[in-house]
Amino acid sequence: MTFPPLPDVILEPLVRLALLEDLAPAGDITSDSVAPLNTPMHALLRARAPGVVAGLDAALLSLRIVDPSVVVSVSIGDGAAVEAGGVIAEFRGAARSILMAERTMLNFMGHLSGIATLTREYVRAVAGTRARITCTRKTTPGLRALEKRAVRLGGGVNHRFSLADAILIKDNHIAAAGGVRTALERAQSAAGHMRVIEIEVDTLEQLREALPLRPDCILLDNMDLDSLRDAVALAGDSVVLEASGNIRLDTVRSVAETGVGYISAGALTHSAPRLDLGLDAD
Amino acid sequence: MTFPPLPDVILEPLVRLALLEDLAPAGDITSDSVAPLNTPMHALLRARAPGVVAGLDAALLSLRIVDPSVVVSVSIGDGAAVEAGGVIAEFRGAARSILMAERTMLNFMGHLSGIATLTREYVRAVAGTRARITCTRKTTPGLRALEKRAVRLGGGVNHRFSLADAILIKDNHIAAAGGVRTALERAQSAAGHMRVIEIEVDTLEQLREALPLRPDCILLDNMDLDSLRDAVALAGDSVVLEASGNIRLDTVRSVAETGVGYISAGALTHSAPRLDLGLDAD
Amino acid sequence: MTFPPLPDVILEPLVRLALLEDLAPAGDITSDSVAPLNTPMHALLRARAPGVVAGLDAALLSLRIVDPSVVVSVSIGDGAAVEAGGVIAEFRGAARSILMAERTMLNFMGHLSGIATLTREYVRAVAGTRARITCTRKTTPGLRALEKRAVRLGGGVNHRFSLADAILIKDNHIAAAGGVRTALERAQSAAGHMRVIEIEVDTLEQLREALPLRPDCILLDNMDLDSLRDAVALAGDSVVLEASGNIRLDTVRSVAETGVGYISAGALTHSAPRLDLGLDAD
Amino acid sequence: MTFPPLPDVILEPLVRLALLEDLAPAGDITSDSVAPLNTPMHALLRARAPGVVAGLDAALLSLRIVDPSVVVSVSIGDGAAVEAGGVIAEFRGAARSILMAERTMLNFMGHLSGIATLTREYVRAVAGTRARITCTRKTTPGLRALEKRAVRLGGGVNHRFSLADAILIKDNHIAAAGGVRTALERAQSAAGHMRVIEIEVDTLEQLREALPLRPDCILLDNMDLDSLRDAVALAGDSVVLEASGNIRLDTVRSVAETGVGYISAGALTHSAPRLDLGLDAD
Amino acid sequence: MTFPPLPDVILEPLVRLALLEDLAPAGDITSDSVAPLNTPMHALLRARAPGVVAGLDAALLSLRIVDPSVVVSVSIGDGAAVEAGGVIAEFRGAARSILMAERTMLNFMGHLSGIATLTREYVRAVAGTRARITCTRKTTPGLRALEKRAVRLGGGVNHRFSLADAILIKDNHIAAAGGVRTALERAQSAAGHMRVIEIEVDTLEQLREALPLRPDCILLDNMDLDSLRDAVALAGDSVVLEASGNIRLDTVRSVAETGVGYISAGALTHSAPRLDLGLDAD
Amino acid sequence: MTFPPLPDVILEPLVRLALLEDLAPAGDITSDSVAPLNTPMHALLRARAPGVVAGLDAALLSLRIVDPSVVVSVSIGDGAAVEAGGVIAEFRGAARSILMAERTMLNFMGHLSGIATLTREYVRAVAGTRARITCTRKTTPGLRALEKRAVRLGGGVNHRFSLADAILIKDNHIAAAGGVRTALERAQSAAGHMRVIEIEVDTLEQLREALPLRPDCILLDNMDLDSLRDAVALAGDSVVLEASGNIRLDTVRSVAETGVGYISAGALTHSAPRLDLGLDAD
Repeated sequence: MTFPPLPDVILEPLVRLALLEDLAPAGDITSDSVAPLNTPMHALLRARAPGVVAGLDAALLSLRIVDPSVVVSVSIGDGAAVEAGGVIAEFRGAARSILMAERTMLNFMGHLSGIATLTREYVRAVAGTRARITCTRKTTPGLRALEKRAVRLGGGVNHRFSLADAILIKDNHIAAAGGVRTALERAQSAAGHMRVIEIEVDTLEQLREALPLRPDCILLDNMDLDSLRDAVALAGDSVVLEASGNIRLDTVRSVAETGVGYISAGALTHSAPRLDLGLDAD
Repeated sequence: MTFPPLPDVILEPLVRLALLEDLAPAGDITSDSVAPLNTPMHALLRARAPGVVAGLDAALLSLRIVDPSVVVSVSIGDGAAVEAGGVIAEFRGAARSILMAERTMLNFMGHLSGIATLTREYVRAVAGTRARITCTRKTTPGLRALEKRAVRLGGGVNHRFSLADAILIKDNHIAAAGGVRTALERAQSAAGHMRVIEIEVDTLEQLREALPLRPDCILLDNMDLDSLRDAVALAGDSVVLEASGNIRLDTVRSVAETGVGYISAGALTHSAPRLDLGLDAD
Repeated sequence: MTFPPLPDVILEPLVRLALLEDLAPAGDITSDSVAPLNTPMHALLRARAPGVVAGLDAALLSLRIVDPSVVVSVSIGDGAAVEAGGVIAEFRGAARSILMAERTMLNFMGHLSGIATLTREYVRAVAGTRARITCTRKTTPGLRALEKRAVRLGGGVNHRFSLADAILIKDNHIAAAGGVRTALERAQSAAGHMRVIEIEVDTLEQLREALPLRPDCILLDNMDLDSLRDAVALAGDSVVLEASGNIRLDTVRSVAETGVGYISAGALTHSAPRLDLGLDAD
Repeated sequence: MTFPPLPDVILEPLVRLALLEDLAPAGDITSDSVAPLNTPMHALLRARAPGVVAGLDAALLSLRIVDPSVVVSVSIGDGAAVEAGGVIAEFRGAARSILMAERTMLNFMGHLSGIATLTREYVRAVAGTRARITCTRKTTPGLRALEKRAVRLGGGVNHRFSLADAILIKDNHIAAAGGVRTALERAQSAAGHMRVIEIEVDTLEQLREALPLRPDCILLDNMDLDSLRDAVALAGDSVVLEASGNIRLDTVRSVAETGVGYISAGALTHSAPRLDLGLDAD
Repeated sequence: MTFPPLPDVILEPLVRLALLEDLAPAGDITSDSVAPLNTPMHALLRARAPGVVAGLDAALLSLRIVDPSVVVSVSIGDGAAVEAGGVIAEFRGAARSILMAERTMLNFMGHLSGIATLTREYVRAVAGTRARITCTRKTTPGLRALEKRAVRLGGGVNHRFSLADAILIKDNHIAAAGGVRTALERAQSAAGHMRVIEIEVDTLEQLREALPLRPDCILLDNMDLDSLRDAVALAGDSVVLEASGNIRLDTVRSVAETGVGYISAGALTHSAPRLDLGLDAD
Repeated sequence: MTFPPLPDVILEPLVRLALLEDLAPAGDITSDSVAPLNTPMHALLRARAPGVVAGLDAALLSLRIVDPSVVVSVSIGDGAAVEAGGVIAEFRGAARSILMAERTMLNFMGHLSGIATLTREYVRAVAGTRARITCTRKTTPGLRALEKRAVRLGGGVNHRFSLADAILIKDNHIAAAGGVRTALERAQSAAGHMRVIEIEVDTLEQLREALPLRPDCILLDNMDLDSLRDAVALAGDSVVLEASGNIRLDTVRSVAETGVGYISAGALTHSAPRLDLGLDAD
């Protein structure tokens, strides 16, 4: 596998939840009543459309929890590109076990590969600029760690994982603190050396107010391209600049060409269509 | 609220998981370090695009777990239509609490309202035909119960919730049983009176084999429109017919006009884009 | 094993709960303080009374969680009959491990085999009639999936597993809807093709009202034998009829002889005495 | 309430598990589809047979988790006797909520009141002797704490709750230790002052060997009445004697009359029939 | 290993919690980004100060959950003494796995070995007297079972594990009951034969009141040495005496020399400094 | 309260675990058997030694879970100083409830206040220097979030919370990467703008190698005071310097006076003695 999997101890609660959704309370009643199914099965996990593979770690853990004796052979690991029709993995074992895990495996991988694939498109769209693509906290409830990893697998970098992860000062924080200066000073005093501090600005005026206080990053929210260019000129190399707000695949390159360092797009995680995958019995 | 919420006992584990994703391990470190925020807040939950509201039950439980003292007033309940700019609910309480729950609320509602909204589009597309729109098991891991409800809120009906829920005999079951007849007889013997039995057929020939055995439903998988029409003619009123396979919003009406009773579409749950929603401080 | 076990992912939470009840917080303090017990043990799981074996899946998972290295050999699997004195399984491994799991294994199997055994008695009592024996939702809290499976192992069929599983319209629903017709029409509109609809009637008059609306099943509650016979005559083959209410082992055959299709008995799960089982060190 | 309830923190995991069994994944689909049910309900929880009430703590917590706004009025608390037809509690609130919790409440109470009622019969059977009735570890998996409390509510006392709770030296421990003396000395050295030590003997000879070593209790296993009487004479007041092995309601008094201090019966928890209870809408 | 480990089923929830603290939500981002680390590693777990080993069971389970393929060789098991520099265990396996588990392993062992080591010092301080050292319920939240075992590993014995474990009658219980006699009589009636009864006294007068009622133990709380000696003389062998209150390592011997049977010290679990341990790559 | 509490959703799993440790499986059997205790209680939570209060959030949640009707009045909140004898909070409610929660409350607060108090001593020891005191990942398993907050309450700042939180490059990472330059470049490429990068150096030579690559922080591990001073001179203001390794209360000031920005001490969390607290009935 190209990228290390998430540790099982992180994946397991969600994988068990997903398996229970599909198996509780009585298991696979069709197989149990219709077919003995103690015959062996050889099945191929195939992409039906091109994309970037993600979620194989969760899928394989799903199968392992259902039946650790199924033999798995991975051809295209998480983070690697797959063509339409490409074989991602092979499974050999009890048909009953593979069929019980099938839908859960495909649901994890279709969703997460969809995110990795869309991320790669954004990353390619900005190729040659200095801008890097980053995600947001607009993730599917319960799946944040997996979706953030899918963004990395697609070539993006992660924004903060939670409200506890980094300091991001927004409008209402500035208002509550009584101004940009007070807000930033309080943040710098509290944060210590292990927390990044970012502040959101909507105007160049706010940007000018923030720059001398030397936050680690400044989020330029919903600015037009001209303003973004001006912001880049103003800031120079003194701070990391991030652009956000309504970033789409057809607009991201023009934003990148303004010279900002990071572009964050919620759509990576909240609106990526599934990558079509299927399991074919041999 | 137009539709009853899912019982809290079902929602709570997932809601707590979602809150922990956004708050663990140290809470909202920005608010804690920058702003006292013990001032009250009045905030409006607004749609930024038209759609069908869903996930309000999970969102309100999120807020209630963070702070049960926030006062909530709902204008547009789950299952109702909202216009762009429409106010769905109002919140009055501690700013700190509302901000801690904000992202979790929006993530639940954006995702689930997206599904309800897309379902409504499919339902409208087949208006005037006898066909009903139904979902599949292609759901996001951990969210099946909520996504299935979002389909209902959009006007669809639910297919089975799990492998334990109804008997759906597919190719490999028929093969393992040694034929359509044996498979259906075994299913009917095991199922009792509380389990629906459906069998998947790919050809009219298979349909003819299945019909005399009187399953409750027959799934016509990936048939072209002519075959679907023939299938409807063959089956008459003796059995419920369901069409599936690559159903899209621009093709669903032509499928419906063949006369099938149900049309299932995985895209309802696995590829619906988020409905854009936001929280505005007053 | 004759019947497939419930998937581990379903059994494991309850099995761990049961093990913790018997081992927390300090393990087996008697063995730990009195006997080194690193000697091997060979033990036989025996029935002390005749019956139908059930719960072996949960028992073996209990043992596997305590110590996966104990070697197990099953002679009489779940769903098979055992005589008094019959050996169900053999265990070879560390005495310490087998003794730690012993009580949990016996408690699962004694309880569930008791249910399977009682179910078989009901099934035998109606042999030669068309009636099938079915359970109810009157199960032991936390054990429903296991008890429902024990009913299947004894030859019965399962009624619905939960309030979410099928529609069963009772008195108060009819009253709230304003009549049998409205209730059934609403149910048929909501249910879709994957939910069975059953309605409960107490009188032949109610039966006559329900029949033309073609529910899938009609529950004849607490009717005397004459009324049941009349109901069977009225309904013909148009609907599945189920009799319920105070069904006992000594009365079930006379109910079956009225010609109903299903007979449901709460006693199967809520009042079955334990099947006596024991573990004998060789 | 006559007896204090178990702390909610103990009951809640099992109560939530039980509610989920009956409500997941979609809630009460009958009420949701057939009846609005936002009318109020007044319901009476009644015994349909005489007995001792138990499990009201778990039942009321079930209802409170479903809907904390239902008003409850208890007439006959846990541990009190109820006649056939007696009203145990009244509920006023949303019909929808009461109906969602109904089956879970009745399942807890029917099962646990059955145990309390059977225990009371054993206790009455030995009235006037010095013997006290005690339970065993032969409990239903997951319900031990609740079943043990039901035994107390019926007038019994509890034996140890788990393998970690007290030292009970059995045959295989004696064998592994190399004799009664070594086993008891090791136990006394390890136990400290907070652990009771009991040793099981099958013969008077073993009893004579154990007595001088002064264990806290001696378990007389499967002895006939004459041997029990001899054991009582031998032991005098120097140790607590407990009789066990195939204790039935029709034999327990003769065992009690031998003069033993405690009689343990697995049947109290593993084979008590349900107490018949029902919920009647007013 | 000298002492049997706690059963995995007890350790596992806490071990998983501890691993998640250190790995969620994205795993070891340093190793993942900087070093492939699929080279093997040979590491030695060493004490950097002398002490008693404890917590190896939890540490090894931590490693096994991260990666069951790491090969472990234990030199000095739980409960054994280790010198400064002594090798406790060796690990051979993937560097990535060992490093992911390292901190969790060391945190368990440092904390628990600290407790075992301090307990041994108390035990040695009273060597030659009849007094035994025992712990209290003043433990770290979530770690009670592990800390109690560490006390045993250090040579101490355990006091009760919980409020449900034994009866300990304190001031407010005596006051609420209306006197020592009533309190003890009620306790003896409720307790049955499996619960130890202890009563706390602050004065010799209270001791004289309690003695004739024959509780199993009497806790002499915060008495000076003279009073303790008088108490021992008064009580003779009729009851177990336990001294408590501000016991320190430099005072414990003088307390032991008064002749009491048990001395309980909260400091064993709430204030033991960590034993310094480290993992050295070979 | 001076500092905001951790969100309940974070505290609750650990608080429930702690309560269950003290109450399962049968509750407070002493109070239940000896004293009715339905009399009200007024109790004062008092420090018995001076210190900094911490853990009140967990303590009050413990009490609220046991009984939400107990009225609480806080005098000295988390993060505030308390004198010996000072009243931290008052409780009025059912004696039974307060006594059930007492030990859990005191165990949380004694442990966490001990950490806050020790941290304050370190902070005071470096007063007047520019150095700030920070913790490590050497925390008690399961309690990291609470212990990290206790460090903040004592005036310290937090180091990273987990391996996923920031990049800290150590020896074996440098070795695996093949040098300081490669390691830092890889880290900077992977980290994005939301992750701090720190590298550990043992010598001034390594420091010189790292400085030009501009990591956010450099950890000076186990250097003597002269080396630390040289390091500060070399680095100037270009990077944050952190000193670590065997920091003790009596040595921390001399380390601080070398001019480093941060000093990390594992002892803050792994070896702080409990702050003595007690609950006094009025």
